[in-house]
Amino acid sequence: MAPKITAFERSPDRGRGLARDLRVRWALEEVGQPYEVRLLSFSAMKEPAHLGLQPFGQIPTYEDGDLVLFESGAIVLHIAETHAGLLPNDANGRARAIMWMFAALNTVEPPIFDLALTRVLERDKTWFEERRPMLEARVHQRLSELSRRLGDADWLDGAFSAGDLLMATVLRRLHGTDMLDVYPNLCAYIARSEARAAFKQAFEDQLAVFNGRSAS
Amino acid sequence: MAPKITAFERSPDRGRGLARDLRVRWALEEVGQPYEVRLLSFSAMKEPAHLGLQPFGQIPTYEDGDLVLFESGAIVLHIAETHAGLLPNDANGRARAIMWMFAALNTVEPPIFDLALTRVLERDKTWFEERRPMLEARVHQRLSELSRRLGDADWLDGAFSAGDLLMATVLRRLHGTDMLDVYPNLCAYIARSEARAAFKQAFEDQLAVFNGRSAS
Repeated sequence: MAPKITAFERSPDRGRGLARDLRVRWALEEVGQPYEVRLLSFSAMKEPAHLGLQPFGQIPTYEDGDLVLFESGAIVLHIAETHAGLLPNDANGRARAIMWMFAALNTVEPPIFDLALTRVLERDKTWFEERRPMLEARVHQRLSELSRRLGDADWLDGAFSAGDLLMATVLRRLHGTDMLDVYPNLCAYIARSEARAAFKQAFEDQLAVFNGRSAS
Repeated sequence: MAPKITAFERSPDRGRGLARDLRVRWALEEVGQPYEVRLLSFSAMKEPAHLGLQPFGQIPTYEDGDLVLFESGAIVLHIAETHAGLLPNDANGRARAIMWMFAALNTVEPPIFDLALTRVLERDKTWFEERRPMLEARVHQRLSELSRRLGDADWLDGAFSAGDLLMATVLRRLHGTDMLDVYPNLCAYIARSEARAAFKQAFEDQLAVFNGRSAS
């Protein structure tokens, strides 16, 4: 039995691959694990059947036999721990790859997500333009620190890992803004991530759902 | 050699145990691992020596032999993986405990931290009162979902785990507000966490630093 994940029936990102099922699809492609997808409407996500799996009413979930997981970071880590290809074999390298997973989700993503949320929900508010420089400064602080650490390396710590996978999905949320322009090494890092065959397949599969070309 | 962590020389939380070294201290106490503490001033945190360990200029870090980690979530997970007491032994229970670690840091903490940050940085702004209900509604959404999932259980999934440890530290940030009042089970959950001997020791140790009673 292939593991089963959930995804938006109609993603609010309009097919740009920003919904969090992309992370899980990408991880599954990296390790060569086939999977099934169950699509959910916004209303179904808030119904008891889904809340039993995901108490916060979100996607993605991951079901594999008796195991039910939510939180894209936890699902990616579970996939990385149960398949080869997303974590180094040496204990210290493995711990540092997991560290970058947490850094992506807990240090770099919050200011980026906050800025994106504000752009959607508060664009018409009188204070939007006055608050924006503050929010952008918080994003730039993290981007500049990350850019400095990455330097001219291909990946954050040795070979591509689950830490890079999550970091790239976080940075991709800035596509369509000019905020990455001053960090050429981060732009190259994102491009390098998006050039991976596993990313391309995951991206195409979520786009096919958005375009109505796939029922699964 | 005991592992060494870093903490604020003078915590901006005024000894309330909200700085992220508390999570690491608590985890180390839970597993009975002695440790050393190196205190850092705000200016030292932004100097090259610390940025070499922690590219985002934050505390805590964790140094153990050749291994250097940052991100409190990753440090707690590393401690949990290398000592008994913070993760279940069965594989599925272990995966779910890690899932709650990510849920604490990536789903529940962001709206709580955002509200706390706004209270500090934007209290005097003209828009503060108008934005506040929106920010509080986001927090209440997560609290109500978490409260419903916890129900009348003692902990989020079976025995106390690293997931509960992180979730409790996230919820404690709401002490001093009235937002938890409508969730008696979450209040009891926090109290149950704070009653643990390991939490008490960790809290006292960070408070001693704030009160200048400890040089280490």
